[in-house]
Amino acid sequence: MMDFSNFYKRIAGTRLNHWLESAPSQLAQWNKYHRNGKFPKWQKVLDKLPVRQPEFSDIQTQVAFGHADELSEGEQKKLHNLLKVLHPWRKGPFHLYGIHIDTEWRSDWKWDRLKQHISPMKYRTVLDVGCGSGYHMWRMLGDGAELVVGVDPSDLFLAQFEAVRKLSGNTQDIHLLPLGIQQLPSLHAFDTVFSMGVLYHRRSPIDHLFQLWDQLKAGGELVLETLVIDGDENQVLVPSERYGKMNNVWYLPSSAALILWLNKCGFVNVRLVDEDITTTDEQRRTEWMTNESLADYLDPTDPSKTVEGYPAPKRAIIIAEKPNNEN
Amino acid sequence: MMDFSNFYKRIAGTRLNHWLESAPSQLAQWNKYHRNGKFPKWQKVLDKLPVRQPEFSDIQTQVAFGHADELSEGEQKKLHNLLKVLHPWRKGPFHLYGIHIDTEWRSDWKWDRLKQHISPMKYRTVLDVGCGSGYHMWRMLGDGAELVVGVDPSDLFLAQFEAVRKLSGNTQDIHLLPLGIQQLPSLHAFDTVFSMGVLYHRRSPIDHLFQLWDQLKAGGELVLETLVIDGDENQVLVPSERYGKMNNVWYLPSSAALILWLNKCGFVNVRLVDEDITTTDEQRRTEWMTNESLADYLDPTDPSKTVEGYPAPKRAIIIAEKPNNEN
Amino acid sequence: MMDFSNFYKRIAGTRLNHWLESAPSQLAQWNKYHRNGKFPKWQKVLDKLPVRQPEFSDIQTQVAFGHADELSEGEQKKLHNLLKVLHPWRKGPFHLYGIHIDTEWRSDWKWDRLKQHISPMKYRTVLDVGCGSGYHMWRMLGDGAELVVGVDPSDLFLAQFEAVRKLSGNTQDIHLLPLGIQQLPSLHAFDTVFSMGVLYHRRSPIDHLFQLWDQLKAGGELVLETLVIDGDENQVLVPSERYGKMNNVWYLPSSAALILWLNKCGFVNVRLVDEDITTTDEQRRTEWMTNESLADYLDPTDPSKTVEGYPAPKRAIIIAEKPNNEN
Amino acid sequence: MMDFSNFYKRIAGTRLNHWLESAPSQLAQWNKYHRNGKFPKWQKVLDKLPVRQPEFSDIQTQVAFGHADELSEGEQKKLHNLLKVLHPWRKGPFHLYGIHIDTEWRSDWKWDRLKQHISPMKYRTVLDVGCGSGYHMWRMLGDGAELVVGVDPSDLFLAQFEAVRKLSGNTQDIHLLPLGIQQLPSLHAFDTVFSMGVLYHRRSPIDHLFQLWDQLKAGGELVLETLVIDGDENQVLVPSERYGKMNNVWYLPSSAALILWLNKCGFVNVRLVDEDITTTDEQRRTEWMTNESLADYLDPTDPSKTVEGYPAPKRAIIIAEKPNNEN
Repeated sequence: MMDFSNFYKRIAGTRLNHWLESAPSQLAQWNKYHRNGKFPKWQKVLDKLPVRQPEFSDIQTQVAFGHADELSEGEQKKLHNLLKVLHPWRKGPFHLYGIHIDTEWRSDWKWDRLKQHISPMKYRTVLDVGCGSGYHMWRMLGDGAELVVGVDPSDLFLAQFEAVRKLSGNTQDIHLLPLGIQQLPSLHAFDTVFSMGVLYHRRSPIDHLFQLWDQLKAGGELVLETLVIDGDENQVLVPSERYGKMNNVWYLPSSAALILWLNKCGFVNVRLVDEDITTTDEQRRTEWMTNESLADYLDPTDPSKTVEGYPAPKRAIIIAEKPNNEN
Repeated sequence: MMDFSNFYKRIAGTRLNHWLESAPSQLAQWNKYHRNGKFPKWQKVLDKLPVRQPEFSDIQTQVAFGHADELSEGEQKKLHNLLKVLHPWRKGPFHLYGIHIDTEWRSDWKWDRLKQHISPMKYRTVLDVGCGSGYHMWRMLGDGAELVVGVDPSDLFLAQFEAVRKLSGNTQDIHLLPLGIQQLPSLHAFDTVFSMGVLYHRRSPIDHLFQLWDQLKAGGELVLETLVIDGDENQVLVPSERYGKMNNVWYLPSSAALILWLNKCGFVNVRLVDEDITTTDEQRRTEWMTNESLADYLDPTDPSKTVEGYPAPKRAIIIAEKPNNEN
Repeated sequence: MMDFSNFYKRIAGTRLNHWLESAPSQLAQWNKYHRNGKFPKWQKVLDKLPVRQPEFSDIQTQVAFGHADELSEGEQKKLHNLLKVLHPWRKGPFHLYGIHIDTEWRSDWKWDRLKQHISPMKYRTVLDVGCGSGYHMWRMLGDGAELVVGVDPSDLFLAQFEAVRKLSGNTQDIHLLPLGIQQLPSLHAFDTVFSMGVLYHRRSPIDHLFQLWDQLKAGGELVLETLVIDGDENQVLVPSERYGKMNNVWYLPSSAALILWLNKCGFVNVRLVDEDITTTDEQRRTEWMTNESLADYLDPTDPSKTVEGYPAPKRAIIIAEKPNNEN
Repeated sequence: MMDFSNFYKRIAGTRLNHWLESAPSQLAQWNKYHRNGKFPKWQKVLDKLPVRQPEFSDIQTQVAFGHADELSEGEQKKLHNLLKVLHPWRKGPFHLYGIHIDTEWRSDWKWDRLKQHISPMKYRTVLDVGCGSGYHMWRMLGDGAELVVGVDPSDLFLAQFEAVRKLSGNTQDIHLLPLGIQQLPSLHAFDTVFSMGVLYHRRSPIDHLFQLWDQLKAGGELVLETLVIDGDENQVLVPSERYGKMNNVWYLPSSAALILWLNKCGFVNVRLVDEDITTTDEQRRTEWMTNESLADYLDPTDPSKTVEGYPAPKRAIIIAEKPNNEN
């Protein structure tokens, strides 16, 4: 049983109030029926973690809670072992009481690429769709966001997020719900909505854009990151089977096509702020993620291609606005 | 729009947590569709009432907030006029900044009759089913209850309750929801449940008893008050048409029959603590309730009978317990 | 999988048309989730039964299909064994190809008691609530009813009914659905509704009467049979625990009380046509129902009382009408 | 009130049986709430139409019911006026008792283009998604289909279809339901499913393909017609605003892209059987459709382009199969 009552308490009386009309029953259902079969094991990890108020914390330049010397050697070893149960760690890195969780992704690099382009987080209420283990959520909070909510249907990410949160001492302004975006009511309430690494997994990218629209308040900002291909606005790659060994990839538009789609959905001031070929420095196998990673997905003889022969992963960051007078 | 978010905030994380799975959507429905047509008028009254933190308040011996001298004469006159819009006032009396709301019922007399028989309210979480304008809820709070929730589907009662609450300065531990008992989930959570003046209006008294059972925690206490007739455990009056001019009266059992029903439903330690013929001193027309009252419902030539010839209203108070090991 | 499509086909385009809006999904649910655990065994019996168009049939004076000489001795023996799997047989008797199913109840006696008092069945569309294995449904059809539908939530009764139906050759005008009355939409469509042996099992007899009302067309006839006690219109027995060893008995009113209830619900021309103490000739252990029966439920030293000391079972038949202008 | 009970009767006991679990309640909802505001007017037209069993009918080479001399001159004039109320007539043509309904589209030309490529209709149960007024449904029936069901959410099409059906005398094997494909349960039951002129209106073409899949039985055949552009399998046009003045056009893939999508969804033996630029002979303004038509949607100075500058409408017909072992 995950307890989400701190989240309910936090949003009661805020602009997110209407979420109380659906989230508690959905999450009760999740607690009863939908949790990953391994969740009880992960829950035990969470139960064993100490609740700490760390003496040191930094979420402005990294995600770090606690110095090594805040724990005894035995405690640190125990903590290390507990966190290892939550393998594989994909998004990070996290620095926790001297333990460096070196994740598959250098998510901090992505944050560095986009940070300068987005509206300042100060006082903002933010939604992170497909938030993973919540790395970027901490950085949003670190940059001054008032409230950060992430949604991600993968239960392991919830366990990893709750582990970090417990060690951070924060229980108020950062929350992850194990829901898909399509389970959310149209809140029309967030100042900024992030969707990073989600769109190419959707069977209907247009419906995804409308779902993001429905979460934004008028005048709100969308930060969209997804896989793209080169080409003009009519170029859209739909991999006939797998892409980079992933079997749930649907649409990889060109950045131009994606910008057109956003405009068609009603967004304004749509602009591409970054395009970047993912390197095997940014996404790679580590001690905390020992499965296959990017290097295994690329053609060994030509790393500009995936093993299937498609263009290797290139990611675009696009920023767009919901007009001020829209709902 | 009534805003129930203080209630949501108050119950998040308590034993009443599961109520969040249904109440917010039900109350959103109520706000959209089900409110009494006059509610907007009553809402305006509420909006115009001052939010006050009274210098004087007494909920131990009466329900009184504020002395006359806390308001100017003009303010007091305005307050008087606003409260009059919420006519008819049935349950009370209330003393508000020098205004004496002399209600149809001396609800304080009922409280005096039962108070000595019930478990002390101290630290209790209490549900009052059919709570009316909430008079008894204030007295429960005055006797030390930790949290008092009332439910009553009559919207005028909600308006009256909120008027008193606004003048009391209290927003935390006392809440009225415009719901019927049948809309509640089985909370199995309250220390005490009151049902006073409800059972004779139900088409199925047995189902009502089970609904009350479902709100009580194991070991909790039920306080049941309803109309009864004289007779043994097989005596049940079902008025063929109206009773005391009320057209929605179904079952008036004898106290013995009612005790049997409670036992059959699983309650234990069931006992009659009071039987009382209602007098025209306790229920009568006043300046704050100018419609017909008890005197008009009785046979003018024989006040021991209703106008229809039935026995005049007699009320029983029965106390019962849900066993410790039940759910 | 029971197949109810003949029922759907039969009611499409009739006054019962609206039932198609709920019955198919409810019965699909029943097929998936709600069947008795033994149903697959009973289904096998049904599958093995021959589909017969009997040379002889009588549903005017009894329920009999087929003469003994229509089957070989081997076939008859096999049939006997199959029908025995559906033990216990409570409502009957049935005569099937020389096999006499001597049921616990002489349901024919009840039919004989009421038949003279009810409106002729000719051309009527009839609902039998709590129809058991359908004995009376056949007699209704035998008296000329155009369409007879029974509902009973007990799955063994469905199996017994389908067994008899298969041997009768009739698939058109007689149907049993494994539903409770509370699952029916308000059809306002039946010429006659029977409710026999049901009301004393209901926690809310008044709601039961309204449910029956909701199935009747304006001007339709209700035939209500239930357990009663002696006494005036205020006499209602609620057994504190079991009654005649049954643990789901709630209200046994006097006939006078029951008549008052019917009037209160809006029925007119309400009349008692029969009151009868059930004898151990009418309800008894047989070769086809070898469990306990009435003799075991009565006080051995005083058969005017149940083993619990209540008055022994007395049954009343009451007929009532829904007014012509009501809906 | 449209009465769909003939449809219910027709499918009860067939492979489409499960549809009874949802269609009756959806169509009852439609009757109550969702009909076009003009439907009562159209309904009156239907009520006034004669039920005819025409002496002459041809659905093999055209859709024609009745010769001119089967009606008096006055009757014919009245019929003409009634059918005119159902303007605009888009799909046809229809020949009814000497009246030639010259529709916007020569739908017969489309039928001629595809007929030779599809599996013979003989004995097939067929679904036509987005069936319009049902022209092709009649041709399917004419080619021997056992049962033809069309779905189209536009209520005027239903009125036109029912008008033709009433004049045809056929009530059994051809049915149109005012539903969208997304309202259908997964029937896995049709031998052939047609989707013509629908896909480019869908926000999610992939979901549309899966919905069609879900209606087909294993081994069934899909006939898909939609707007396409020239180009390789990565070419997809998403019009930024309108296309040919239509504001609900989403995806126009190349035929190659569409074939890839079908393969990705699991279809096999996918082949393009026709590509055709729509001419102003095939789609044009007529006496029975006096609004704008194709000529108005094209650039007057360059008919190879729409007024918005996109490639003029080109349509592809693609045939695909659901594998034999799939569900």
